Amino acid sequence: MAVVTDSIDMRTGGEVQMVDVTSQVQAAVSRSGLASGIVCVFNPGSTGALTTIEYEPGLERDMPEALERLFPKGIRYHHDDTWHDGNGHSHVRASMIGPSLAVPFTGGRLTLGTWQQIVFLELDNKAHQRSLVLQMVGE
Amino acid sequence: MAVVTDSIDMRTGGEVQMVDVTSQVQAAVSRSGLASGIVCVFNPGSTGALTTIEYEPGLERDMPEALERLFPKGIRYHHDDTWHDGNGHSHVRASMIGPSLAVPFTGGRLTLGTWQQIVFLELDNKAHQRSLVLQMVGE
Amino acid sequence: MAVVTDSIDMRTGGEVQMVDVTSQVQAAVSRSGLASGIVCVFNPGSTGALTTIEYEPGLERDMPEALERLFPKGIRYHHDDTWHDGNGHSHVRASMIGPSLAVPFTGGRLTLGTWQQIVFLELDNKAHQRSLVLQMVGE
Repeated sequence: MAVVTDSIDMRTGGEVQMVDVTSQVQAAVSRSGLASGIVCVFNPGSTGALTTIEYEPGLERDMPEALERLFPKGIRYHHDDTWHDGNGHSHVRASMIGPSLAVPFTGGRLTLGTWQQIVFLELDNKAHQRSLVLQMVGE
Repeated sequence: MAVVTDSIDMRTGGEVQMVDVTSQVQAAVSRSGLASGIVCVFNPGSTGALTTIEYEPGLERDMPEALERLFPKGIRYHHDDTWHDGNGHSHVRASMIGPSLAVPFTGGRLTLGTWQQIVFLELDNKAHQRSLVLQMVGE
Repeated sequence: MAVVTDSIDMRTGGEVQMVDVTSQVQAAVSRSGLASGIVCVFNPGSTGALTTIEYEPGLERDMPEALERLFPKGIRYHHDDTWHDGNGHSHVRASMIGPSLAVPFTGGRLTLGTWQQIVFLELDNKAHQRSLVLQMVGE
């Protein structure tokens, strides 16, 4: 049993960008030398989120549209009283989806479905340099 | 310390079905021989989700009604331009709730509350054969 | 490699209270003696949730307002037919956000962002004595 830490660095372009990080997570699992375990993909920040989705152009538009319906940009957020940076909706969206995703791997491979990708959602209203933490626990 | 992989197979009946898998997850933890650790319950697919809930008939109706209010079936989803299968809402719902749930166990027992069950949510608009992955890490 | 179990006890004041538990989770990681691994923060109950957020007074108001827009208290929930305790919205909210949060730690420190705190959301319509489970797996 061992713990192996890795990371994924990226430059994002602002809201709402969906970045497919599946191949990078798989590469980190392969690099780790671990055969079976859990990888925790974590965003150290409060305006991004992790989930899985079928990564295709239709859903790349549907997710932002759903987020805009549920957490509109144009309404008042008290967060703006603190920072005046206009991203209150980004914070609320990120907290609802969550910053962390745990995915099992066996035989050195992530146990994802065929049409299922791991995505980082950039929810902030400006571009960011992001560095996701990958924490692998296994044997 | 060890990693033990198990699975739960089921036939679902389409949206929105809430399947209580608590006893099956507990049985897998017991089978594993591990006393203390974390079990990651994961759906390898993009139209189902994992969470916990008090499993009772009222909430079995409230969850689908809430999902229909937030992510209605009848509106346009661009996902349909790709596949024409009418389940854009299923994908968006699944990504918002998430495909993965980590639950601690101690003394060989899941640390759930008395009125808290682990449920798989079938969110797709058709029946599925599902096979959840259970990845247990512990000692 | 080892598993270390800890807990955080608190008295909450009812909905929607956001409790910053970051320093307590960090203290448990430090107490564990583990340098690197994953901590799973879990609420054993069906009317509370775990996530991360920038813990500041604006978002302390924005999150409850967003939850009230999406899952209003005033509408009918079938859960009330079972228990008549008026907290159907609490259950649905808790299941959507989720009871579990996995956070990596390295060098004995949680890998959180500077403006990112771990929060427990009390979503029930009454005060509770809560005891969160902290399950640490690492080395």
